[in-house]
Amino acid sequence: MLKLYGYWRSSAAYRVRIALNLKGLAYEQVPVHLVKDGGQQHAAEYRALNPQGLLPLLVDEEGGGVRIAQSLAIIEYLEEIFPLPALLPADPAERAQVRALALHIACDVHPLNNLRVLQYLSSELGVDDKAKNAWYRHWVELGLAAVEEGLVAFDGRLSLGSRPGYLEACLIPQLYNARRFACDLAAYPRILDLAARCESLEAFSLAAPEAQPDAQ
Amino acid sequence: MLKLYGYWRSSAAYRVRIALNLKGLAYEQVPVHLVKDGGQQHAAEYRALNPQGLLPLLVDEEGGGVRIAQSLAIIEYLEEIFPLPALLPADPAERAQVRALALHIACDVHPLNNLRVLQYLSSELGVDDKAKNAWYRHWVELGLAAVEEGLVAFDGRLSLGSRPGYLEACLIPQLYNARRFACDLAAYPRILDLAARCESLEAFSLAAPEAQPDAQ
Repeated sequence: MLKLYGYWRSSAAYRVRIALNLKGLAYEQVPVHLVKDGGQQHAAEYRALNPQGLLPLLVDEEGGGVRIAQSLAIIEYLEEIFPLPALLPADPAERAQVRALALHIACDVHPLNNLRVLQYLSSELGVDDKAKNAWYRHWVELGLAAVEEGLVAFDGRLSLGSRPGYLEACLIPQLYNARRFACDLAAYPRILDLAARCESLEAFSLAAPEAQPDAQ
Repeated sequence: MLKLYGYWRSSAAYRVRIALNLKGLAYEQVPVHLVKDGGQQHAAEYRALNPQGLLPLLVDEEGGGVRIAQSLAIIEYLEEIFPLPALLPADPAERAQVRALALHIACDVHPLNNLRVLQYLSSELGVDDKAKNAWYRHWVELGLAAVEEGLVAFDGRLSLGSRPGYLEACLIPQLYNARRFACDLAAYPRILDLAARCESLEAFSLAAPEAQPDAQ
């Protein structure tokens, strides 16, 4: 059994839920509340499982109980252990293009807007809500503009031609966050088109934050 | 020929230089100055190659001129195209542990302390140098503490047993940055031990910032 420690609104956990669904893998969810009790991800019990103190964490009980932190490490592991259906193209150059866009989201957009960073801006640097929202939108807009340009090469196709995969598993949660913070998305028609095609699929709708057992 | 667009002090470019050296691959360097001319990575000429406007970028001229952004996407590509010597362990669970630690550095430490973020803190949020340095050290120390704990499982070995690879290619540049910003590293004896074993190797010493043609 695969066990996913996550939180309904954690966009990194959302990526892994999509990947698991795209591969048709059953999994059990263990909610870790990012705010309650001062953040359950900081509790000794969770940190004993994942010293990074972040979500998500995958435990593969059939795989000797291996515990894997970091959403992209989890998705690469799933791709290696359960290769079909593939989430990455077969060609190394195409795989690299997908990973480069996914990593741009995972490294250069999302971590800057993660809850712990927004908390630091407020509590340690005294940044007010208006400036914090401007910070949020600044990094989202820079990142989505680069992804929009990267999608030109896909020429209207999804990252696996007619199927979504690794790239879409990273992009759709980022888009969810962008909408939540009222970012203006009019400049990203390729992203919006790709999102519309994914969001109608069950692998995505069942992974959406509001569809999770711990959604509030 | 492999062509690497980088900057001597870009820690993401430093990762790729280590990976290329570990694989014994020849490459040509194209320096992109991150400060001069308002940041040459923002210039139209460079953005035409890499719309993300970040370093590094690898161009594989033998591979049809494919251009790959994002250091970890580049390293995964090199691993697929030039599999030997491997930079990742063969076992999927071990690969996942390496990727999870490398991604923790690449996602949750480095991007928060990247030049463009430090510039935003100063210019947009009016953060003074003292608070900016505290920010820097906060994320480095949180991240290195988690990596230190992750290294317990390696039991004194390098990530490929007697050889360094993907993990060390990410960790050594982060340690370079931590030293540059005078972070206290006494709490990370496993990281320091691993670094001492890597830094004596030519693949690492030749990749060091000060050894690059554009070093100042």
